[in-house]
Amino acid sequence: MPAFNPVDIIISKRDGQVLSPERIHALVAAYTKADVPDYQMSAFLMAAMLRGMDESEAFALTRAMLHSGVVLDLSDVPGIKVDKHSTGGVGDKVSLILAPLVAACGVPVPMISGRGLGHSGGTLDKLEAIPGFRTDLSIDVYRRQIKELGVVMIGQTAEIAPADRKLYALRDVTGTVEFIPFIAASIMSKKLAEGIDALVLDVKCGAGAFMKTDAEARRLAETLVSIGEQFGKHTVALLTEMSTPLGKAIGNGPETAEAIRCLHGEEVPDLMDVTYALAGEMLWLGGAAGSPDAGIEQARAAIASGVALEKFAALVTAQGGDSSVVYYPDRLDTPPAVEVRAPDDLRGHVAHIDALSLGWTSVKMGAGRMRKEDLVDPAAGIVLNKKPGDPVSPGEVLARLHTQKQDELPVFRDAVARAFTCTEDPISPASRLLDRFSDGQWANP
Amino acid sequence: MPAFNPVDIIISKRDGQVLSPERIHALVAAYTKADVPDYQMSAFLMAAMLRGMDESEAFALTRAMLHSGVVLDLSDVPGIKVDKHSTGGVGDKVSLILAPLVAACGVPVPMISGRGLGHSGGTLDKLEAIPGFRTDLSIDVYRRQIKELGVVMIGQTAEIAPADRKLYALRDVTGTVEFIPFIAASIMSKKLAEGIDALVLDVKCGAGAFMKTDAEARRLAETLVSIGEQFGKHTVALLTEMSTPLGKAIGNGPETAEAIRCLHGEEVPDLMDVTYALAGEMLWLGGAAGSPDAGIEQARAAIASGVALEKFAALVTAQGGDSSVVYYPDRLDTPPAVEVRAPDDLRGHVAHIDALSLGWTSVKMGAGRMRKEDLVDPAAGIVLNKKPGDPVSPGEVLARLHTQKQDELPVFRDAVARAFTCTEDPISPASRLLDRFSDGQWANP
Repeated sequence: MPAFNPVDIIISKRDGQVLSPERIHALVAAYTKADVPDYQMSAFLMAAMLRGMDESEAFALTRAMLHSGVVLDLSDVPGIKVDKHSTGGVGDKVSLILAPLVAACGVPVPMISGRGLGHSGGTLDKLEAIPGFRTDLSIDVYRRQIKELGVVMIGQTAEIAPADRKLYALRDVTGTVEFIPFIAASIMSKKLAEGIDALVLDVKCGAGAFMKTDAEARRLAETLVSIGEQFGKHTVALLTEMSTPLGKAIGNGPETAEAIRCLHGEEVPDLMDVTYALAGEMLWLGGAAGSPDAGIEQARAAIASGVALEKFAALVTAQGGDSSVVYYPDRLDTPPAVEVRAPDDLRGHVAHIDALSLGWTSVKMGAGRMRKEDLVDPAAGIVLNKKPGDPVSPGEVLARLHTQKQDELPVFRDAVARAFTCTEDPISPASRLLDRFSDGQWANP
Repeated sequence: MPAFNPVDIIISKRDGQVLSPERIHALVAAYTKADVPDYQMSAFLMAAMLRGMDESEAFALTRAMLHSGVVLDLSDVPGIKVDKHSTGGVGDKVSLILAPLVAACGVPVPMISGRGLGHSGGTLDKLEAIPGFRTDLSIDVYRRQIKELGVVMIGQTAEIAPADRKLYALRDVTGTVEFIPFIAASIMSKKLAEGIDALVLDVKCGAGAFMKTDAEARRLAETLVSIGEQFGKHTVALLTEMSTPLGKAIGNGPETAEAIRCLHGEEVPDLMDVTYALAGEMLWLGGAAGSPDAGIEQARAAIASGVALEKFAALVTAQGGDSSVVYYPDRLDTPPAVEVRAPDDLRGHVAHIDALSLGWTSVKMGAGRMRKEDLVDPAAGIVLNKKPGDPVSPGEVLARLHTQKQDELPVFRDAVARAFTCTEDPISPASRLLDRFSDGQWANP
């Protein structure tokens, strides 16, 4: 192999060449050690984004990022370990229900999640709305807990995919975020480091998602699944709709409360449809069910019997959290809440609720971050009282707001009211479940 | 104007938009002040290189780089100030003859030059081969000397186009060098800061030049002239051939000696053809001649009469140099020189001498820099004894080498011999002067 020269690699990509795995590995490894400076990597990122990367390069990039850090080996933990990853949306608290639910059905779920940034929330922030809950467990504790409890939910540690952390920060400030091979390599390098055997992806699509169009979301799903399969991990992607908020709650405490209520058996149809569909896939991949549909039935039974809730309680306790909230979820979205009522021109049936707009409003209310270093207010958020399909008349409560920023209430109230649109005729909301990609095929292409 | 956000500008260019002059100016100004870091600028450079920049953007970039520093005003110096810029080649010592020659004919020449990097030399290094010659004059001294002597030759000062210095260094390490709008903006921002009224460009074309193909060289010439004209400076470009070395000497001391001998009247046909053609243009642009051809005649007369040589002697004295070398140029390329003789298979007539190969060999011999911080050996270099068209037989002297690296002599000797190719039939070397671009038109398109 010739001597490593980052400029040569930049120029090769700039000129449209396909890079060998060795060159991609050398570049990422040198960047991780800071032997290649940010200004060379950003030129490479832009060249790759504009010239493209093929499937072999996306795979090589993922592998290089994965091996920039520790790759956990959970082969001593019995069972097929399965995780889920969501590309993120507004009101997406699925992981909090799903992880204990699947674990309660016998499939171990080792889950490493992120924080919220921008309009979409993060699982870690939601878990940390529970007083005392710790997401910064060491790898040793992580390993012990997955063995003993069958479920563990932590944040990315310094040992896992350090190249991804550096690249993610650099992409954010160099206009190189929205490129599917980078997005896929970032997701998969972290997930593959967890020690999983199989993976389910919830690829969200629509105005409130990262992928705005069906075509983009499908391409991302295909790339993610292809990378997973190349690593020998059975990977399934569900394409789900994200133009209206998922469930009723937006914001960390309110979403955690809603997730707990769902574990208690409360029916929030769109949220639970997505959760059960993902659970069915995980139970099937984990060998606990003969088919995804059979897995869905098992999951429903685990909610009904209370074993999923018990598993969540055990998880909260194991990770230092106050498990009383598992039984008194109202403590997480206690009033005072401010009501937003339907204005005079809003009557008929709710046709649409703008997820992106509500996502940003909740951030401004204190529920999220504009910049990484911002603190979140765990109690802040929006709880919808009306969902698509519901009848609405002027003066009815559309939503309740939780925020400490009382001065800005008129602005928030106005933004939330304007996120609703109505039609005269009754409508039934479309299914969130758009499609499924597995074994190289879409179910409904 | 919306608040300045470098990421937005990067994304606009990434997505193929044409940037407004205001946005380009804001980006370059912020980069010069280090408010925009290298990693954002390198992403922008790559995006611009792959998406392209149109004429308006190249102009705006040049203007922004120009105004990153001091723009000299020489309007108090009588006469039309004219400079020449060469895109660089092997054996290109034209500036050393041209500047005093044109000044001797009454047209002031304020010249700010660069150092050699890579296979092509730099005027500053050649001047500094003269003991004591100082190229680091202050702007005040520069201004006084152009007024009093009509010619001054210095290096780029810290005040002139600081954005160019930063960008040049960044482009070098990020694979963003070979892009005509960047090359043109870099050249023109420095030249326009000198206080000139008109400019002649020697755009070199061929294997020993930066622009390897006729098409690239023409595009660069057109861009340079277009930018110059947009700044209201009459600009002419000559397209000249650079696949064999220009003149006989390669290396700083040897080239300076050759330039001085030409000022004494020695005829080195290819070198003096280019020099006279450029001088004719400068004298015409400077109002001293009614046409470029008439300017050539004046220039020939200034060599023949010795006034050009006297001007050079005055220049050397004014800038602290030992003017005795003006009368004893052999002191700059004194033996010991090592002869390179024609091998057994080299017979007939010299058809070609590989300029790029000899350029790199001279660098290895100590005449140039691989990296900016390298020191050059002023005495090192190659002096050709045979030029294209000359008859050659095995054993005849092809060239003489000056180097302190005696250990590597066999390698240098072999490389120099192999740079020569022969044909059986007599040939007459083609003219260096390929074409001329002025007022939006090529003379021989």
